[in-house]
Amino acid sequence: MSLSQQSPIDLSNPVVANFGKNKLAIKWKKTAKGTIVNDEHGVHVEFEPDERQFIKLDQKQFQLVQFHFHHPSEHRVDGVQQTMELHVVHQNTEDGSRAVIGVFIEPTSKSKLVPSLIPELKRFLEVKDGEPDPNISTNPLEWLPEDMKKYYRYEGSLTTPEYDENVSWVVLREPSKLSKKELMKLIPFLQHPARETYPLNRRFVLANFKQ
Amino acid sequence: MSLSQQSPIDLSNPVVANFGKNKLAIKWKKTAKGTIVNDEHGVHVEFEPDERQFIKLDQKQFQLVQFHFHHPSEHRVDGVQQTMELHVVHQNTEDGSRAVIGVFIEPTSKSKLVPSLIPELKRFLEVKDGEPDPNISTNPLEWLPEDMKKYYRYEGSLTTPEYDENVSWVVLREPSKLSKKELMKLIPFLQHPARETYPLNRRFVLANFKQ
Repeated sequence: MSLSQQSPIDLSNPVVANFGKNKLAIKWKKTAKGTIVNDEHGVHVEFEPDERQFIKLDQKQFQLVQFHFHHPSEHRVDGVQQTMELHVVHQNTEDGSRAVIGVFIEPTSKSKLVPSLIPELKRFLEVKDGEPDPNISTNPLEWLPEDMKKYYRYEGSLTTPEYDENVSWVVLREPSKLSKKELMKLIPFLQHPARETYPLNRRFVLANFKQ
Repeated sequence: MSLSQQSPIDLSNPVVANFGKNKLAIKWKKTAKGTIVNDEHGVHVEFEPDERQFIKLDQKQFQLVQFHFHHPSEHRVDGVQQTMELHVVHQNTEDGSRAVIGVFIEPTSKSKLVPSLIPELKRFLEVKDGEPDPNISTNPLEWLPEDMKKYYRYEGSLTTPEYDENVSWVVLREPSKLSKKELMKLIPFLQHPARETYPLNRRFVLANFKQ
């Protein structure tokens, strides 16, 4: 296995870029059906194949596949680890290449925003008797920050085995500010060790904003 | 040997970038001493180590090492091979990494510009009796086009064995327009097979200009 283009990385000193027609376009629709799974990868949501749920990046289409969380964050910004990071995994159906959108999540008592997935997750995790119902319908757009146009961009890998180097990473600059009260209940379940950061090697970190 | 980040490439659809403090700064001085060598790599100039002759790129310093030519060009621009390409090879003395500046050369009857290296090369190549004197003193700045601020940028390799993947490439957008009459005399000596272009794979081609 090559280890030359691994993730996560420290997002620092990006080259300021104008992506033009290669820019990210999030085409998610409000209703995404999936299954909550709690296994060695932690709690995550596996989405049903749905041709309406996709993003475009570098003029390629990637379908929504999976959602999972890291606490603390895996990517760092100028050396600083963030509170939480959501990874929204997409895959191109033709060549298997992936595009992952990383969204930092900042729990704040000033926000009352609670994505509909949170009560679904709590219901799933708190069932004591019998089997919890893993089927959910959720709105992925609820996890996006107000400004989702500013982002970092680089070529990297999965951060869990087999660490495949086929991931085009987009990490949004602005964190999603969500209700601290609700998120804190979830954090114990969402803990997921963050992989250490890897050297850039011969890669560019780009950003479509000036710092 | 990894073949994932090879050169040359087709320079097309670059991402428009603002390199900021990582930008190229050419610090060559007018007098560079070196030796003309004619071997299996074709005719080239090997420069004497001279701490005054360097460039800065990505905030790293690379010393002037070598000059050679390709006819036709190795890099393509939007799929099109150019007439001639000068490669000015630099190396960082600490880690051995390289930075090569590629300059396209357009022979034109409208130009009377003749870099001082050309008569030196002709003198060297035309000596029939005895050993030619390979020692020269030349001005590398004479090979630069008027606008040397616009360039393509990517991470690649040497285009000759061992094809080391340790080259930071800068290819100037504007060709250097030089006297056709003088260049044509040299071209037979400068012919040097151009390596085929390689796929980008997971690399960005950046450009600090809009097309």
